[in-house]
Amino acid sequence: MIKVAIIGASGYTGGELIRLLENHEKVEISAVTSRKYANVPIYKVHPNIRTDGLVFKDLKPNSLDADIVFTATPHGASMNIVPEILETGAKVIDLSGDYRFKDIATYEKWYDLEHTSPLKAVYGLPEIYKQDIKKANLVANPGCFPTGAILANLPLSKEKLVERIIIDSKTGISGGGATPSEVFHYPNCSDNVSPYKVTSHRHMPEIQQELGLYSNVKVSFTPHLVPVIRGILTTSHSFLEDDSISSEKLIKIYKKQYQDEIFVKILEDGEIPQLNSVRGSNFAHIGCFEIDENGRLVIISAIDNLVKGASGQAIHNMNILCGFKEEEGLNNYGLHP
Amino acid sequence: MIKVAIIGASGYTGGELIRLLENHEKVEISAVTSRKYANVPIYKVHPNIRTDGLVFKDLKPNSLDADIVFTATPHGASMNIVPEILETGAKVIDLSGDYRFKDIATYEKWYDLEHTSPLKAVYGLPEIYKQDIKKANLVANPGCFPTGAILANLPLSKEKLVERIIIDSKTGISGGGATPSEVFHYPNCSDNVSPYKVTSHRHMPEIQQELGLYSNVKVSFTPHLVPVIRGILTTSHSFLEDDSISSEKLIKIYKKQYQDEIFVKILEDGEIPQLNSVRGSNFAHIGCFEIDENGRLVIISAIDNLVKGASGQAIHNMNILCGFKEEEGLNNYGLHP
Amino acid sequence: MIKVAIIGASGYTGGELIRLLENHEKVEISAVTSRKYANVPIYKVHPNIRTDGLVFKDLKPNSLDADIVFTATPHGASMNIVPEILETGAKVIDLSGDYRFKDIATYEKWYDLEHTSPLKAVYGLPEIYKQDIKKANLVANPGCFPTGAILANLPLSKEKLVERIIIDSKTGISGGGATPSEVFHYPNCSDNVSPYKVTSHRHMPEIQQELGLYSNVKVSFTPHLVPVIRGILTTSHSFLEDDSISSEKLIKIYKKQYQDEIFVKILEDGEIPQLNSVRGSNFAHIGCFEIDENGRLVIISAIDNLVKGASGQAIHNMNILCGFKEEEGLNNYGLHP
Amino acid sequence: MIKVAIIGASGYTGGELIRLLENHEKVEISAVTSRKYANVPIYKVHPNIRTDGLVFKDLKPNSLDADIVFTATPHGASMNIVPEILETGAKVIDLSGDYRFKDIATYEKWYDLEHTSPLKAVYGLPEIYKQDIKKANLVANPGCFPTGAILANLPLSKEKLVERIIIDSKTGISGGGATPSEVFHYPNCSDNVSPYKVTSHRHMPEIQQELGLYSNVKVSFTPHLVPVIRGILTTSHSFLEDDSISSEKLIKIYKKQYQDEIFVKILEDGEIPQLNSVRGSNFAHIGCFEIDENGRLVIISAIDNLVKGASGQAIHNMNILCGFKEEEGLNNYGLHP
Repeated sequence: MIKVAIIGASGYTGGELIRLLENHEKVEISAVTSRKYANVPIYKVHPNIRTDGLVFKDLKPNSLDADIVFTATPHGASMNIVPEILETGAKVIDLSGDYRFKDIATYEKWYDLEHTSPLKAVYGLPEIYKQDIKKANLVANPGCFPTGAILANLPLSKEKLVERIIIDSKTGISGGGATPSEVFHYPNCSDNVSPYKVTSHRHMPEIQQELGLYSNVKVSFTPHLVPVIRGILTTSHSFLEDDSISSEKLIKIYKKQYQDEIFVKILEDGEIPQLNSVRGSNFAHIGCFEIDENGRLVIISAIDNLVKGASGQAIHNMNILCGFKEEEGLNNYGLHP
Repeated sequence: MIKVAIIGASGYTGGELIRLLENHEKVEISAVTSRKYANVPIYKVHPNIRTDGLVFKDLKPNSLDADIVFTATPHGASMNIVPEILETGAKVIDLSGDYRFKDIATYEKWYDLEHTSPLKAVYGLPEIYKQDIKKANLVANPGCFPTGAILANLPLSKEKLVERIIIDSKTGISGGGATPSEVFHYPNCSDNVSPYKVTSHRHMPEIQQELGLYSNVKVSFTPHLVPVIRGILTTSHSFLEDDSISSEKLIKIYKKQYQDEIFVKILEDGEIPQLNSVRGSNFAHIGCFEIDENGRLVIISAIDNLVKGASGQAIHNMNILCGFKEEEGLNNYGLHP
Repeated sequence: MIKVAIIGASGYTGGELIRLLENHEKVEISAVTSRKYANVPIYKVHPNIRTDGLVFKDLKPNSLDADIVFTATPHGASMNIVPEILETGAKVIDLSGDYRFKDIATYEKWYDLEHTSPLKAVYGLPEIYKQDIKKANLVANPGCFPTGAILANLPLSKEKLVERIIIDSKTGISGGGATPSEVFHYPNCSDNVSPYKVTSHRHMPEIQQELGLYSNVKVSFTPHLVPVIRGILTTSHSFLEDDSISSEKLIKIYKKQYQDEIFVKILEDGEIPQLNSVRGSNFAHIGCFEIDENGRLVIISAIDNLVKGASGQAIHNMNILCGFKEEEGLNNYGLHP
Repeated sequence: MIKVAIIGASGYTGGELIRLLENHEKVEISAVTSRKYANVPIYKVHPNIRTDGLVFKDLKPNSLDADIVFTATPHGASMNIVPEILETGAKVIDLSGDYRFKDIATYEKWYDLEHTSPLKAVYGLPEIYKQDIKKANLVANPGCFPTGAILANLPLSKEKLVERIIIDSKTGISGGGATPSEVFHYPNCSDNVSPYKVTSHRHMPEIQQELGLYSNVKVSFTPHLVPVIRGILTTSHSFLEDDSISSEKLIKIYKKQYQDEIFVKILEDGEIPQLNSVRGSNFAHIGCFEIDENGRLVIISAIDNLVKGASGQAIHNMNILCGFKEEEGLNNYGLHP
């Protein structure tokens, strides 16, 4: 039984961490913090979680009694507290973008912030960095779009099958967080589709960083808000360099790449991933593998942005880091319908 | 480890039974049957459940190797197979309406069917019949609307506080099942609210049967389809006989009634139950307790129609019947958001 | 050709007024005002209306060059500007609650504001007050819930058929206006139903005022937010005093009451009003008229809250006031699907 | 005043034709036909249109008393009746795919049907073929996806700016028609995104045919179902051949191309088309024009699939053909929100 604390626990990813950890058998939640909701019972903010006695506290980062600390804090805030937490001996899984970039300049350009506290972190995509995560003190949990996009395209880059990838993603509104704004106002989102940051989303360099490690592939990325609560459906379009490659061959390559990965499911020929197969779960579904007359290949992935794209993946990282079974606390299937 | 079989496993309640039982530690699924999908892997119908090896079979009711059989069959079909299953020594939890009525004539009138095989069954609302369920061979799992409506009004009838109750329910579309029809066609449901069977829904006599056991209360019931996938929000309006009763007093009465019930949560003063607090979970939230200037009392309940209103409740019944912990396999909180 | 101005034109009702008036053949829009968006072209706020040259202005109420002024201002703001506008000789149609109450004390109690400028206004429900509206200088446009609720119940009160009415309304989220808040945040509204102000909504006394003019009927009212953009579906439950009254008789009474009303459609026996029949239109559909075994009568009405419940009704009032055809600019049918 | 008839008037495009034509001042509807609903009043199928006396008839194509006939019949059915209608002297606007292809072989390949009655038709995209439409006897009304995709990319092909275009479209569910099926079952569509016919949709060759007239551009196309009732949002990705082209230059080119087109709105720099700006209207919004670091250009278009993508465009074609004002009966703005 280890002790975990969640900093910034009043947001959506904080809520999901509590929801999942409450039923995790190896874990006890020692603290959930929130400045805004200090001393408020958590059910007032997360009305689904009606557990007795869990109350938000306004605690200092260095006063947490925890083996693992999840920092569900905004970009820019995490770098101010993570060093302190690490000094207490706790290990940190950070859900912000602050520690995801190998190159600080990239971070500073795309996040428009000075990085005041660079530290060595492991990029927490377990399907790539499992061995490093086991030994990490600080895990940078991946962004939601990068999780779906990297998993969908990793074998293409590794096998040097394509030079350019166009990633057209459709995200649920919860990806924008719990704070109301015009963009996320129900009458503006419902029955609508809104492309945004069409060529300027900061998850683009994160996807480029990881896919660019294996080849010179160039990534173009455009996200769209769709009237969905949870989920990211990523449609990846690319032109195959070698037109002798078949769908069957590609499925083989993908199945091999992910054969040991519990949470990645390569769908069968003819199956198309859908959001309502992964809703509320930590699974990523990858499928399609169709090639059209112009040699364009389409790969599609589906994840729940708050689980596999955030809090579930963070717990997966914790499980690896602590030597638990990878699926501990994460083995439920998605809600369908 | 007991063996369970699910008959009629291709529908929504069948899918939910599989989803939940796959992670139930005391249970092994020995068979899932479907005539229509015989020999089809279940993920072709339930794409969320990507477990290896589970395939629909077209099995005879008396050839199942199971300790507990869930009959997720339509009204009228259950009565044709339940007697045979009971003869094999298995216990049956029936999700249809066939065994819910104490008075066969009521069943025959409202279901417009001749009941060919009346049997003694326990009405499977654990919050009322827990002791009987423990000893039952046949449990009649309650209807989805009755589950939310009875729980919301039971103390009012027991304490003889009201004479007439108007139950105005709002249900998610999954309540209509997995078979497409004009009524459930997306463009007809979305951005719409549809009252239906306004004074003639067959769940009315089921609610009346249970609430009428304790007083002469008369129940009026009207359901509405709302553009929601899962969930039933029940608004119960009634006029208090004794206008000295206060909200605080009512909350006390409700908390006492349900003090030992794991899955019923009486919300605090000022909290209003919402569907997105119970989505995907077996919890029922009950709250409001407001009284207006005319002495009208409002009680509101929220459940997930496919879990607490069907498959989760069926598993709860199984847990009680088998002597497992009541919450075994059912302890996850709702998805919020 | 008359000149009209819209004060507070950046909100939803302001946008609807512009949308509808742009195609009204007897009207020229002389000014649309907004303090917040002064000098901004209207398409930046209402991206559907891509008309050239219409720009928000920050104008004083007494400097408008208009025959008719629509005040689409919040409660409490209207009473500060309406007197000044009337002095310019313009006639005013006010969309706020400020002038709806015959009894100032009721207004002050339910709106929790001191009324600083009581004036004689006509309650702008054309189906009741058409003759008065023709001669009015100031029309108080009805609230959205009252429009649907009064039309659904007017004959019941006039004919003294019932003593108590329970009005259970389901409203689209646009009823809450264009300003973002937690309640209207997409992930909180979607796939959810939220009762609110269950016994304390200020539209209750407005409904009571109008229905109470003809009998001693007592109105109880509870609104619910449903995941719909536009529309109010009102379910009215009441117990008939005289149980010899039939549905057919009631339909006759309703058809007679509304026989000269263009925008009220009494549906045929067996038809149930739905939101997607009136979406975007000024029509009110009224139907159901079923009576259950306990003598409970159900009447259902459907309107678009932004059109018949606000801006369309305001234009209807203008048409009456100016002697135009009642349906001028309002004759389009709802969007279905 | 001309007479128009609608064949196959019970579907969604039939309903939209009636809705719009009922308020068209130059037109009288002489017949609406439906075999399935013969002698049924139209409000039983289109409950929004409560006009007196309009009843579906089961009429022979050659017995219609009409100047213009809209054939809202399925692919394969139109070719069986259009020749007969033309012989009566009426002009025909066909909403099916039967007459859209210059090359019959392409039709037969993609529609998997033998074309039994090839006729000379004009492709009814008014923004390209206005002059031809004026003189046509038979207009082939474009497909919904092609309307949005061709308008978004026409200048790119005309100016030979790109060689390959990837069109990633998101469509509302009404695009699938009024007939229920599993794919369009509410619980399967809501809160979901479903790519379908990822590389095999028959609107692809239609887009290719029109864009291929001006250059060797190759079109790749993938549609997605999104939980929206109406609307198609098309995201067009292409790589610019000449990287000195700027967004400003592109906006200029687009504005010039469409300067005389009433229903095409080129949005300003920084504006992104959205479905809820065109809902229920005949407008197409085109915008974005952003270019990313890799030289990828993004153009986005938004239309209502049932209006500009079908029935509105058909009426626009009728207006041109009959010498009416282009916007007659089509000048309403979209519903927002």
